[in-house]
Amino acid sequence: MSEAIARRVEESFARQGLMVHLGAVLHEIRQGLVAIRMPFRPELSQQHGYFHAGATSAIADTAGGYAGFTVFPENSSVLTVEFKLNLLNPAQGDFLEAVGRVVKSGRTLTICQLEVFAHRPDERVPVAIGQQTLMCMAGRPDVPSG
Amino acid sequence: MSEAIARRVEESFARQGLMVHLGAVLHEIRQGLVAIRMPFRPELSQQHGYFHAGATSAIADTAGGYAGFTVFPENSSVLTVEFKLNLLNPAQGDFLEAVGRVVKSGRTLTICQLEVFAHRPDERVPVAIGQQTLMCMAGRPDVPSG
Amino acid sequence: MSEAIARRVEESFARQGLMVHLGAVLHEIRQGLVAIRMPFRPELSQQHGYFHAGATSAIADTAGGYAGFTVFPENSSVLTVEFKLNLLNPAQGDFLEAVGRVVKSGRTLTICQLEVFAHRPDERVPVAIGQQTLMCMAGRPDVPSG
Amino acid sequence: MSEAIARRVEESFARQGLMVHLGAVLHEIRQGLVAIRMPFRPELSQQHGYFHAGATSAIADTAGGYAGFTVFPENSSVLTVEFKLNLLNPAQGDFLEAVGRVVKSGRTLTICQLEVFAHRPDERVPVAIGQQTLMCMAGRPDVPSG
Repeated sequence: MSEAIARRVEESFARQGLMVHLGAVLHEIRQGLVAIRMPFRPELSQQHGYFHAGATSAIADTAGGYAGFTVFPENSSVLTVEFKLNLLNPAQGDFLEAVGRVVKSGRTLTICQLEVFAHRPDERVPVAIGQQTLMCMAGRPDVPSG
Repeated sequence: MSEAIARRVEESFARQGLMVHLGAVLHEIRQGLVAIRMPFRPELSQQHGYFHAGATSAIADTAGGYAGFTVFPENSSVLTVEFKLNLLNPAQGDFLEAVGRVVKSGRTLTICQLEVFAHRPDERVPVAIGQQTLMCMAGRPDVPSG
Repeated sequence: MSEAIARRVEESFARQGLMVHLGAVLHEIRQGLVAIRMPFRPELSQQHGYFHAGATSAIADTAGGYAGFTVFPENSSVLTVEFKLNLLNPAQGDFLEAVGRVVKSGRTLTICQLEVFAHRPDERVPVAIGQQTLMCMAGRPDVPSG
Repeated sequence: MSEAIARRVEESFARQGLMVHLGAVLHEIRQGLVAIRMPFRPELSQQHGYFHAGATSAIADTAGGYAGFTVFPENSSVLTVEFKLNLLNPAQGDFLEAVGRVVKSGRTLTICQLEVFAHRPDERVPVAIGQQTLMCMAGRPDVPSG
């Protein structure tokens, strides 16, 4: 994968106000794969003190979206069409890691698998798995609007 | 629906650090229906300046979860088993409103439909629809852990 | 909706070997809505003697697909991108009715809601709800291949 | 995995009228994994002559259901709560093979990943991936009703 693609992902990610607000950071960018990490903070919790499923799904969706973005042509942008998430275990740990992986990439649509793990001092627990459909908006560069 | 149930929902929602962090507020609580509103802020945006799908899904999941909670027996808590969201239109507007609605309520599992609308000065645009499976954890009151 | 569209749906449906094999018939065709009925036969059962979820999903997917087809331009064909189904109640009855309904129709993608009901002598029970993403293959008329 | 479990799966599968009607056969039974094969017949086709997505989803759902069944306690039966399928490539080939695999097994709910491949003379093409939620009905043996 070219350096240019990694930079496009980083630059786009940095413009996502929500990722900054949640304290999520890009952890890995490869051809067809992006991983995002998000340390625990009380601001990310649900009512029992674990990571909120909304925070889990936010980084899962984003990891998948940028995984797709790495295989898109230049001057295109990415749109999530839909995603589905099964929550497997309580999202409790020092940080979550979401991994998005391209399974099938077409001209218009790209399908990703999503996984989220909770990292604890001595284990890594799968907390969610998902599937996602992305749309490639060709000819619409991923630049700030306006 | 009893006052006690509405209070249980409000009290539990207030403990969700993420909802506070996103600026989301409970807008309506009825038997089998909960609506949540979330005003736009740059902290909720994706790379083009709209609401991030992760923010959209966070309030959709929460609205459905509490809609289920309104029909659960006392001394129980709610767990999201899975949800699926289709994104219909750019989530652009003054605020989003997520509505969760119980479709089928069983002893163990409850199924909800999820809708999210973007409110703009002169229109209300559907931005997402979803389905969600909830689990009722009977005998585990929804109280702070620890 | 024009007569021509209804005829296109009927003619395409008749070419679906599976619908014939399952004994499914088109029950209603409207702009953005198609209903399919399928009488019970032991050949459609799962291990407890109810309609198999695979039979339920086959007519749900087909109803949605043709609902989308009614809003597509001429000389196009329809492709299911993905669908998700929640099974609500045992699929037991004299016949199932699947209703597909267009929720959002775009140039490339169309989103449908799916519902399946079991008709019993004195009631109509919802057995499944679903969401479906369709793709419009413009310029590829829905004609037999080869 | 015990012989008894394999026999339970085979015996239950044989009672599924739909699987017989579609010409589907059990291909593999392991602890937490079941594969089903289904040769092409015109009776399984959609309007362009490929396998119908409904036939694809029927064996995918069944493979996942029995994968779950292999890890359930004796005297229980299995219920599909929901499933979601992404269709990746045209389902064209000599036969389809659906593989269901348990990802997480809990006391009440079990989550499976579903994969369907089209086998062609010289290749094996992924045609669908999915996720499925199953419910274990403890104390309700999987025997014919009535």
